[in-house]
Amino acid sequence: MKWSKKHIISIKDFSRDEIDYVLKKSSEMEDRLSHEKTGSLMKNKILSNLFFEPSTRTRMSFEAAMKKLGGFTIGFDYPEVSSEAKGETVADTVRIASGYSDVIVIRHPMEGSARLASENSSVPVINGGDGANQHPTQTLLDLYTIKKEFKKIDGLRICVVGDLKYGRTVHSLTNALENYDVEMCFISPMELRMPRDSIKGLEDRGIKVKESSKLNIKDSDVIYCTRIQKERFPDPQEYERVKDAYVIDNSSIEGIEDKAIIMHPLPRVTEINPEIDRTRHARYFEQAKNGIPVRMTLLSLVSGVDF
Amino acid sequence: MKWSKKHIISIKDFSRDEIDYVLKKSSEMEDRLSHEKTGSLMKNKILSNLFFEPSTRTRMSFEAAMKKLGGFTIGFDYPEVSSEAKGETVADTVRIASGYSDVIVIRHPMEGSARLASENSSVPVINGGDGANQHPTQTLLDLYTIKKEFKKIDGLRICVVGDLKYGRTVHSLTNALENYDVEMCFISPMELRMPRDSIKGLEDRGIKVKESSKLNIKDSDVIYCTRIQKERFPDPQEYERVKDAYVIDNSSIEGIEDKAIIMHPLPRVTEINPEIDRTRHARYFEQAKNGIPVRMTLLSLVSGVDF
Amino acid sequence: MKWSKKHIISIKDFSRDEIDYVLKKSSEMEDRLSHEKTGSLMKNKILSNLFFEPSTRTRMSFEAAMKKLGGFTIGFDYPEVSSEAKGETVADTVRIASGYSDVIVIRHPMEGSARLASENSSVPVINGGDGANQHPTQTLLDLYTIKKEFKKIDGLRICVVGDLKYGRTVHSLTNALENYDVEMCFISPMELRMPRDSIKGLEDRGIKVKESSKLNIKDSDVIYCTRIQKERFPDPQEYERVKDAYVIDNSSIEGIEDKAIIMHPLPRVTEINPEIDRTRHARYFEQAKNGIPVRMTLLSLVSGVDF
Repeated sequence: MKWSKKHIISIKDFSRDEIDYVLKKSSEMEDRLSHEKTGSLMKNKILSNLFFEPSTRTRMSFEAAMKKLGGFTIGFDYPEVSSEAKGETVADTVRIASGYSDVIVIRHPMEGSARLASENSSVPVINGGDGANQHPTQTLLDLYTIKKEFKKIDGLRICVVGDLKYGRTVHSLTNALENYDVEMCFISPMELRMPRDSIKGLEDRGIKVKESSKLNIKDSDVIYCTRIQKERFPDPQEYERVKDAYVIDNSSIEGIEDKAIIMHPLPRVTEINPEIDRTRHARYFEQAKNGIPVRMTLLSLVSGVDF
Repeated sequence: MKWSKKHIISIKDFSRDEIDYVLKKSSEMEDRLSHEKTGSLMKNKILSNLFFEPSTRTRMSFEAAMKKLGGFTIGFDYPEVSSEAKGETVADTVRIASGYSDVIVIRHPMEGSARLASENSSVPVINGGDGANQHPTQTLLDLYTIKKEFKKIDGLRICVVGDLKYGRTVHSLTNALENYDVEMCFISPMELRMPRDSIKGLEDRGIKVKESSKLNIKDSDVIYCTRIQKERFPDPQEYERVKDAYVIDNSSIEGIEDKAIIMHPLPRVTEINPEIDRTRHARYFEQAKNGIPVRMTLLSLVSGVDF
Repeated sequence: MKWSKKHIISIKDFSRDEIDYVLKKSSEMEDRLSHEKTGSLMKNKILSNLFFEPSTRTRMSFEAAMKKLGGFTIGFDYPEVSSEAKGETVADTVRIASGYSDVIVIRHPMEGSARLASENSSVPVINGGDGANQHPTQTLLDLYTIKKEFKKIDGLRICVVGDLKYGRTVHSLTNALENYDVEMCFISPMELRMPRDSIKGLEDRGIKVKESSKLNIKDSDVIYCTRIQKERFPDPQEYERVKDAYVIDNSSIEGIEDKAIIMHPLPRVTEINPEIDRTRHARYFEQAKNGIPVRMTLLSLVSGVDF
């Protein structure tokens, strides 16, 4: 894969080799970062953050990544301020931004918007989340967190909990894990089960898949939790009944393996009790922090920066 | 003209020599930029972007310009966040910002606000647009785009299309063109004709002026389009009738000269069909990009930076 | 006091020695700044500005301070954009931000939020204002302004005018002045008198205290004004009657001493007439500007930067 000038739109565009390469380079980047040797990699370069919907974490993470590379950021992070409010198309906004900057991160509520952006940009575009569709940098930092912990991904038992029907991060992560020799366990209310084609995609690759509506997480290496959103339920009482069934707390992790880690793309609301923060299993804050070296790596690779 | 410490408030404050000087220096700046020789011109200097009304393009352009000069930016870009919401006057906000920074860009919906700001600032103020009044940096980048294309401005036939009554960029551009030996053609619905005093201003300088409500753009070197805003029409049906008459598309540019260029201050909505983007005539995205070297030049000049 | 890694939460945490140390170092910082010798003190470091409520002045001041130290800033400045809108706790937001940055400034409408933040951060936290509670950096810049003027704080007669009941800056300033040998005069409508425990706190330290509802400012070295907010009054007519009684203008400063200075945390609305700006007494704009070296000093101290 030629990285320079490449757009990062969907994790589905990545082969296993390419994912592994990003993870390896991210590890090197984290090492450089700890030795304060990154501050001139993208000196004088400009990142445009085009956030057509708010996302504190993703935006701040990309900003921090770019600045730790010695670069600058410009952009906006709320739609009312963008020219879209004046009726401008995303394509036009991207074209203009590509005239101002060296790399673009776009987040937009519409599926396919990042692909559209990449077709209208003279500089590399990184998808920061397009609606319910893709969020590839989240998936890469998820994988990086797993690999950093276990030194491998193959052979792991990965359990995903929560809203598996609408959860964007879950879909992207599952797409990526198709490339690895893992065992998957999906835990959700019936109403929010994993889409059938995702299950089939895994099974076609020979991956062992279990599904359950019970929170059985004992035989897992990775427990990946997501938020269950109230607005997904037509009946609020049904939501109330369901949500408590998937709360991770001290009692629900009884009996999990010592080495098991608990992840979450954050923000969490009630699905992980803060008492878990102090356990040996919690990795969600480290996971968020891992976004920095992973995004630094992606920004550098697509900009043709050698490191 | 002494540039250092000068405020850039209105294009009317510029003589022809001064405009020509900015254009010449902008060309030098663009050349420096292409050789990556601008990154320390304003090192450690701070630009305050005081945007009392949102303007993605102008703000991002100034931010990119400042950062390509090696400087920093601070500021705000939406009125609810500014202290104005607490009842502070613009004069006070500017005074305080001038204590924090080395140069100020202000955009405010009220006519005359930029002048007021300059009277209360201890550092140079650049007008980023004050209501329906002036937007001098837009005009300078417009002129820069024209001169870059034709190597001259004198002798050109410039056709301005759209809302000529309320269009701020059109008024500023026309003010500037009074200094050149051009032929002007104004095309608009009757309701949105160019103000009479602007026409008179041009004729007093001996400039040949044509007006029309028909989209006759065949004998033009520059076709400068602007948006027709629905809210200008008391009768929505009248708007619907009028707007389509001024759409630039493949059929309406039939017969225009090969060398003719189409410009637009952007954002566009429907007034230029995207099919035009792929023609040899489209210059509006390049025009937006030209804002960078022009604004870098102005920031440097008023800050007393030699280049 | 060990400064490195320290959180700056409340002025009450500061001893007199510590306050004096900050003032002395701020003076050194201002001197360095005037010689452009600050631009690499925090090179490649990142400040997270977590503004859960808007505050143009405080945010811009911290941003300018960080940038004049050669560092970067990331963050947000309006609650709708933060993850709080998605139900995230302040504790979680701070934990994540502390993974992205080297120092955090937080402003939040809830009392105690800055303390809570400090307990969840792996990097130093500076309180940028937590509701009606504390705003320690404002107090330090207030004291810095006073000391810069008079070369001392002991022995001064300090008069505070306006809303003394709800005014956060007044309470913090009074807390700090308990450490000095000053005379205090509090001028306010009866409805907005200084809290009794603050008065007692001062008197317990042997500080002479006067209270009045008349604007008698003649025998003062420092006249510190604050805004009287309409919403504090149940009866709007009562507000109208009261507010004009405390306006500082040319007639109300008749007879004050030549050396007396007038301060205000800004923004002001009507409580100081702009005609005062041109008098020898006005120091409020200089006061705002003094926020830069004071905040540069605090950012450096807590980050363990030697200067």
